[in-house]
Amino acid sequence: MAGKKVLIVYAHQEPRSFNGSLKKVAEEELSRQGCSVTVSDLYAMNFEPRATRKDIDGAFSNPEFFSYAVEAYEASKKKSLARDILDEQKKVLEADLVIFQFPLYWLSVPAIMKGWMDRVLCQGFAFDFPGFHDSGFFKGKRALLSLTTGGTAEMYTKTGTIGDYRNFLWLLQYGVLHFCGFEVLASQISYAPGLATEEERKGMVASWAQRLKNIWMEEPINCTLP
Amino acid sequence: MAGKKVLIVYAHQEPRSFNGSLKKVAEEELSRQGCSVTVSDLYAMNFEPRATRKDIDGAFSNPEFFSYAVEAYEASKKKSLARDILDEQKKVLEADLVIFQFPLYWLSVPAIMKGWMDRVLCQGFAFDFPGFHDSGFFKGKRALLSLTTGGTAEMYTKTGTIGDYRNFLWLLQYGVLHFCGFEVLASQISYAPGLATEEERKGMVASWAQRLKNIWMEEPINCTLP
Repeated sequence: MAGKKVLIVYAHQEPRSFNGSLKKVAEEELSRQGCSVTVSDLYAMNFEPRATRKDIDGAFSNPEFFSYAVEAYEASKKKSLARDILDEQKKVLEADLVIFQFPLYWLSVPAIMKGWMDRVLCQGFAFDFPGFHDSGFFKGKRALLSLTTGGTAEMYTKTGTIGDYRNFLWLLQYGVLHFCGFEVLASQISYAPGLATEEERKGMVASWAQRLKNIWMEEPINCTLP
Repeated sequence: MAGKKVLIVYAHQEPRSFNGSLKKVAEEELSRQGCSVTVSDLYAMNFEPRATRKDIDGAFSNPEFFSYAVEAYEASKKKSLARDILDEQKKVLEADLVIFQFPLYWLSVPAIMKGWMDRVLCQGFAFDFPGFHDSGFFKGKRALLSLTTGGTAEMYTKTGTIGDYRNFLWLLQYGVLHFCGFEVLASQISYAPGLATEEERKGMVASWAQRLKNIWMEEPINCTLP
């Protein structure tokens, strides 16, 4: 699918990590297809996760009482959000597919990636009322979570120690991505690379690369609750 | 319950906000009871949400390949985590009850509070294998989420726009707090203060203060899935 644009939002501290390998192989495979690939390497960028007054570049709508949601919404309409937010928003607008590559921290994204969601996907840019779910602003774009876990696959089942993985994926897939209109592709879950052999890890990386060969043919999932 | 210790982990940028009022009334009511109340005001502290190499104070267990989980676990055992993490851990160890006061961001805690969870509640300090859920390290302590929402109560029901609130509360209550052994008290949800009248907001603050009068008599909830 030459000409397609992909944004990889990537959160790992160590370039040689398993997450780093998954990010690298995705860049390689998608570039080989002729896609243009942009990576937001959040730790390398020292990306700011905190939603603060600094995110508003210019006068506050209400200088007496700071409401982040209100100010970000107004600033979004006036394009007066902080530079780093605008830069990320531009990448999202250009992308046909956004891949989030991260290790699971407390059944969710690491704080640095949560901060990306909190700050970049603000009202007025990603959604509005009306303008969410099927009419979310990113209708026509696709998104995919590619995550690694500490625990084994069995632990994330209904009878496992942690519980059904679909419960926490729901929050990100339906509650965040689809809320903004993204069509969500099935999550790529690489279970417990830290407990796997080198051979098994290579297999997981290869299976991700293999999947990406046909990624543009995939149908979005129905991301309602299990 | 004179003598009890309470930690309020608080995430709002504006002291005069509704979240600020809930935090203030909790401080007042619990102090009135003779409890000792500590507040971690995350934005005021400019709390660091990013989990990085800087969190390890001393030599890495593996300097060639940085794994945050591995290094934080080892550093936790040697008490060589960064000063700001140790400070928060000390507050948790001393507390009989931890209250998390925050506005819901993307059906979860704001990134600054997610960072507190990612960095403070590390393996070796909050849990281990074995040593989680009923044998989590904070057995005997209690925790409670007090959150505000942008949407109305109806939106967070099974047939509402966003979906059943118990699905995202499960992740924090069961997946994070109870995983560390906390006994979890029912969440205090203040719906849509931004859409409420001043009178209604006062009512919500008063009802929180009223609940806190008998907070030490409450039974923990069963925080499995709905």
